[in-house]
Amino acid sequence: MKTIKSRFEIFRQKTHIIIYGTNTFAGRLFDLILLGLILLSVLIVMMETVKGFDQKYHTELVFCEWVITLFFTIEYLLRIISINKPFRYIFSFYGIIDLIATLPMYLSLFFAGTSVLTTIRALRLLRLFKILNHPQFSSQSVHLKESILASRGRILVFMYFVLISCVIIGSLMYVVEGADAGFTSIPTSIYWCIVTLTTVGYGDISPVTPLGQFIASFVMILGYGIIAVPTGIITAEIAKNTLRKKSLKIHCFSCGSEDHLENAKFCQNCGSELDEAK
Amino acid sequence: MKTIKSRFEIFRQKTHIIIYGTNTFAGRLFDLILLGLILLSVLIVMMETVKGFDQKYHTELVFCEWVITLFFTIEYLLRIISINKPFRYIFSFYGIIDLIATLPMYLSLFFAGTSVLTTIRALRLLRLFKILNHPQFSSQSVHLKESILASRGRILVFMYFVLISCVIIGSLMYVVEGADAGFTSIPTSIYWCIVTLTTVGYGDISPVTPLGQFIASFVMILGYGIIAVPTGIITAEIAKNTLRKKSLKIHCFSCGSEDHLENAKFCQNCGSELDEAK
Amino acid sequence: MKTIKSRFEIFRQKTHIIIYGTNTFAGRLFDLILLGLILLSVLIVMMETVKGFDQKYHTELVFCEWVITLFFTIEYLLRIISINKPFRYIFSFYGIIDLIATLPMYLSLFFAGTSVLTTIRALRLLRLFKILNHPQFSSQSVHLKESILASRGRILVFMYFVLISCVIIGSLMYVVEGADAGFTSIPTSIYWCIVTLTTVGYGDISPVTPLGQFIASFVMILGYGIIAVPTGIITAEIAKNTLRKKSLKIHCFSCGSEDHLENAKFCQNCGSELDEAK
Amino acid sequence: MKTIKSRFEIFRQKTHIIIYGTNTFAGRLFDLILLGLILLSVLIVMMETVKGFDQKYHTELVFCEWVITLFFTIEYLLRIISINKPFRYIFSFYGIIDLIATLPMYLSLFFAGTSVLTTIRALRLLRLFKILNHPQFSSQSVHLKESILASRGRILVFMYFVLISCVIIGSLMYVVEGADAGFTSIPTSIYWCIVTLTTVGYGDISPVTPLGQFIASFVMILGYGIIAVPTGIITAEIAKNTLRKKSLKIHCFSCGSEDHLENAKFCQNCGSELDEAK
Repeated sequence: MKTIKSRFEIFRQKTHIIIYGTNTFAGRLFDLILLGLILLSVLIVMMETVKGFDQKYHTELVFCEWVITLFFTIEYLLRIISINKPFRYIFSFYGIIDLIATLPMYLSLFFAGTSVLTTIRALRLLRLFKILNHPQFSSQSVHLKESILASRGRILVFMYFVLISCVIIGSLMYVVEGADAGFTSIPTSIYWCIVTLTTVGYGDISPVTPLGQFIASFVMILGYGIIAVPTGIITAEIAKNTLRKKSLKIHCFSCGSEDHLENAKFCQNCGSELDEAK
Repeated sequence: MKTIKSRFEIFRQKTHIIIYGTNTFAGRLFDLILLGLILLSVLIVMMETVKGFDQKYHTELVFCEWVITLFFTIEYLLRIISINKPFRYIFSFYGIIDLIATLPMYLSLFFAGTSVLTTIRALRLLRLFKILNHPQFSSQSVHLKESILASRGRILVFMYFVLISCVIIGSLMYVVEGADAGFTSIPTSIYWCIVTLTTVGYGDISPVTPLGQFIASFVMILGYGIIAVPTGIITAEIAKNTLRKKSLKIHCFSCGSEDHLENAKFCQNCGSELDEAK
Repeated sequence: MKTIKSRFEIFRQKTHIIIYGTNTFAGRLFDLILLGLILLSVLIVMMETVKGFDQKYHTELVFCEWVITLFFTIEYLLRIISINKPFRYIFSFYGIIDLIATLPMYLSLFFAGTSVLTTIRALRLLRLFKILNHPQFSSQSVHLKESILASRGRILVFMYFVLISCVIIGSLMYVVEGADAGFTSIPTSIYWCIVTLTTVGYGDISPVTPLGQFIASFVMILGYGIIAVPTGIITAEIAKNTLRKKSLKIHCFSCGSEDHLENAKFCQNCGSELDEAK
Repeated sequence: MKTIKSRFEIFRQKTHIIIYGTNTFAGRLFDLILLGLILLSVLIVMMETVKGFDQKYHTELVFCEWVITLFFTIEYLLRIISINKPFRYIFSFYGIIDLIATLPMYLSLFFAGTSVLTTIRALRLLRLFKILNHPQFSSQSVHLKESILASRGRILVFMYFVLISCVIIGSLMYVVEGADAGFTSIPTSIYWCIVTLTTVGYGDISPVTPLGQFIASFVMILGYGIIAVPTGIITAEIAKNTLRKKSLKIHCFSCGSEDHLENAKFCQNCGSELDEAK
């Protein structure tokens, strides 16, 4: 009885290393296979919506979906078994997505109405973000994350300014252009203003009166100019991080100066040798 | 008699703290309620222009509008009463907007013609900018404002160059493409040029002759390239501010000055040595 | 006889100061009036192309044009008379444009065919660039010019890369999409590629086949990404100039250090007082 | 017999200097002629696809093509003869392109079906990249290459984020808008999302439902905002390189090292004091 328990414990530990770990060969192989299957499942969901392709290969697509769903189900159960605090995983962000990614297929056996279920399947794609936890990507993404978080406050102030401008200009254009030019309501006019300010410019709605075209020109030049603001904010943060990264590496223990090039051997300030230890 | 006056004075002071202050709980609550009502009133004006929604809920929308208008009217009167220099508020930017935001509803009782009044209602949205005075936003927005103001001169030179280029290229395209391709007049051609240079590209007017398409390609590449100029100007200013902000941490214990570069050893203000202890 | 000559000499000198100088009140007034008239003449040329407006006010527009043309003619003659080396002015860039700006009106008396002449009139707008020589703008524009000139080489390499990419991708899309989708020839396909890469996106030509849409997606992401390159180049140059401008102002004569904040009184490196003389 | 061999050796060496070298007058002239012919051949391929032009000058275009093809063939053979390790050239990137650039013309003598061959001809354009090896461009392009390579990792993380977002939003829009609005399948919806996120905005597919327009507005603002990220990454790298370039001027007379920061006092390589005389 005890042996079975200890055997199960060994199985749990091994499974934990393979599923959650990335240091062993098996762990990395598992991650690669999982990544491949997620991408494949996304591809299958995509191709099912392409009419011509789906009619030809419907059976094959459904079969593949069932195989992947089974794999995901087993993976989900193993994740719960092998972790010490299963409820923490189950109610975590990825835990919920892992569950939602498998459920629709089983539900489709009992209920019809595939169109609604397709929406839920799309959420499966969010699991792809997990790869960002892989070592080769994480240092880069942490760096980016820091810069973006540091500039969050100013970006929000900017977004706030952009949205209020869009509401005011949208209301103005609704009065100037009117419903005949496609500006059927203020929300639609705000939509047009966002399309124009962000320099997307679909052309599904475009001003026809001289005054409307004049205001539109102003919005375009505004949008063309103020894109400099978020760019400037984020660039300044990334530049600070990039320059700081360099200097953090080399510290002079004689004079405390920290502003050295990466390949420096001697302190640029006092001439004493730099400690290569760190 | 004296008591009534002093009671009124106490009421005035309390009202002043609630309406103009942001330090007390009541003051912050008032600001939040006001913000919510402004957003709601904007939403109501928007939804009134959506035909289907307005036909269904017209009575409800109008009722809400009257409630909000009454609140705004009372707020406006309290602002005048509780301030020491009422005329300074009445003729200030926000004072005029506060008045204009309430008037159209009262005028609509005596005069018909709602379409013109809708324009004035849109101005009510400008009051939303008041939130930028709230403490959590102000430090961030001051920072941005400084950077944008510092780069004003060069941005204007750039805008001047862009506008003259648009006039010249617009005139050229009017001759090259002509009225058949949609380039009906020089102002319209300038409008097209702004649409193209800012990379918006509606497609409502687009060149059809090979020469016109060649000039358009040139305009696009120009627009794609020179967006670097305003971005560069503002980024350089923001980067300067971001780097300076960092140095604020180095504090001089002799004179209290805090504005030093990171590698400073002596206070730039009094010349005494800076404490490296930090 | 001698008096007339000397009187003419005085007249020449006075005219020179007014027309070429910007230091006297008369000189600045002349520049303002000239600027106003240039803008007015541009506006008149514009409005002449707007059918409805031209039919109503044709006589007034033509009258205004003749008045301005006469003023420009007198100005042109005075410029020649009052300058010491007249031929250097006549064959200079602005000299030729000043002549071309007046000629078409006189030629229109003898020859018909106004549509061709309109093209030449548009060149008159180039004179507006003269304002960049005014003191308040020149320091700013010199700054920008320097940064753009310094990044010229790398911008050219980038443009070269963009153009070759457009030719290759354009040729590819001509084969993939073909004439039915609007890709009627390789030049047209290159035009489409420039429209897409610069994120203008008219939509007059857009891919319809899955492969074409896939290539188009690649071009869009490329264009969205590589806009970072010219922006980065110019931003780096402007940032260098912005930071250099600051440090150039304050030089420490004790230790030679030049890296000080603008408001520094003492050297941050050696603590000795900074010379405010410069 | 020996004389012929040595004569051939001299011919080989001379040819090598002309074809591969850029230091002699003949070598530079050869490069310029080659560049001109490549551009001409590209122009001819282009003009052949313009229906009207091709019908008029078909014979002339084909004649020019044969002349250039012959020149390219001779050049290809001379390159093989004059190089010491011919197989290294033949199987190099440019070697293969040089061969592919000449083959289609010869094949067209034996086989019909010109439309397929045109694709291969387009590859000839890649040879134009060779000019980047010319001295005046190489230093600039090396600089850019370094900056772009250094930011490769973070750009990839960003691209990964963008693509996943496009897949998720594309799937969402497929469900929200449906086939009637042009969102016929998930791949098409992803194509729309890329068109919108990159601010291209063709307008061939655009949302019609209020919810779809709301999601589209979100995508536009996202795309407008996150363009700051690649720009920031590359700008920071270029700025680092630009600032480092400046420091190259400070030269250490002890060890010859030149890579110092501007405010360095001691050589970072050997620790000896730097000459401030500059």
